Amino acid sequence: MLKQSQVDQLQARTAEMLARQGILLTPEEHRAIEIADFGLGEIERTGLELITYINTDRYCAKELVLLPHQICPEHKHPPIGSIPGKMETFRCRWGRVWLYIEGEPTATIQAHIPTGSEDYYTVFHEIELHPGEQYTIPPDTLHWFQAGEEGAIVSEFSSTSRDEYDIFTDPRIRRQPEVAEA
Amino acid sequence: MLKQSQVDQLQARTAEMLARQGILLTPEEHRAIEIADFGLGEIERTGLELITYINTDRYCAKELVLLPHQICPEHKHPPIGSIPGKMETFRCRWGRVWLYIEGEPTATIQAHIPTGSEDYYTVFHEIELHPGEQYTIPPDTLHWFQAGEEGAIVSEFSSTSRDEYDIFTDPRIRRQPEVAEA
Repeated sequence: MLKQSQVDQLQARTAEMLARQGILLTPEEHRAIEIADFGLGEIERTGLELITYINTDRYCAKELVLLPHQICPEHKHPPIGSIPGKMETFRCRWGRVWLYIEGEPTATIQAHIPTGSEDYYTVFHEIELHPGEQYTIPPDTLHWFQAGEEGAIVSEFSSTSRDEYDIFTDPRIRRQPEVAEA
Repeated sequence: MLKQSQVDQLQARTAEMLARQGILLTPEEHRAIEIADFGLGEIERTGLELITYINTDRYCAKELVLLPHQICPEHKHPPIGSIPGKMETFRCRWGRVWLYIEGEPTATIQAHIPTGSEDYYTVFHEIELHPGEQYTIPPDTLHWFQAGEEGAIVSEFSSTSRDEYDIFTDPRIRRQPEVAEA
């Protein structure tokens, strides 16, 4: 569980990474930067920093920030009732990202899976994204991604986001953020 | 009607404005930059430069570029059959934008309407957007916008885009781009 002081620190670091690329936030957005440690307690290795610009019943847009070599763990967005799962486009804005999805496994992947979590990464079709490059992930498709050595900024354009329905391969993961006092 | 040489020049100018803010495009995207003069033949006054990153049946994302004082003329996105009109979020990335929508008219607006087109601007509720600020325009709502003295870059997040159904107040406007030879 993250301490409030860790959250504050990571929010400041995230806002600074964004500002360096000319991506500005309002004070309200700064306070709303989500620090997702997925309940694993190793935020610098496995985690994600993000700001949701807009999430309506029709579309969603976020800015995702990854620390150097930080990994967003494998998951998919299943259908919810008659609504198909979330479809999302990742556009790399800065840094470098390796994205892995279902499909023909790449012979030698470039990402480093955190020691002890190897069992929870099962798809290895690699897509490397540099600034100005993007990839659209179909609904209900397993995927995970990791930043290169400098970290990364990724714009996400998508259908409506309903994070609470995400299915993670790692059963230890809890998506909803919890924050300890002080 | 725009000449191909004008299109080439404006595409280069648009890509340069984006690059100066760290927003990179692929060569394919560069060639696909849309130069919309709305059939009025006064692109530097009334027009819009844009790149569509993604447009699916679920969501759409574009980057809009406005030259200094360039104006995107008044229009709305009507419902199409049972689908509500396009809903869109404008997020200012760089420069300054004045957005006008239906609602209480602002006493003294900051935008300058091109001489001769005064009759085709009918909504005057002003919203000023600086970098990092955004506004969501409801479906089927008249709106128009103009950049400040330096121009502007605006990220647009929206439901599916179907430009051919847009309704413009100015009956002289043709939305579909036409390009003359050479």
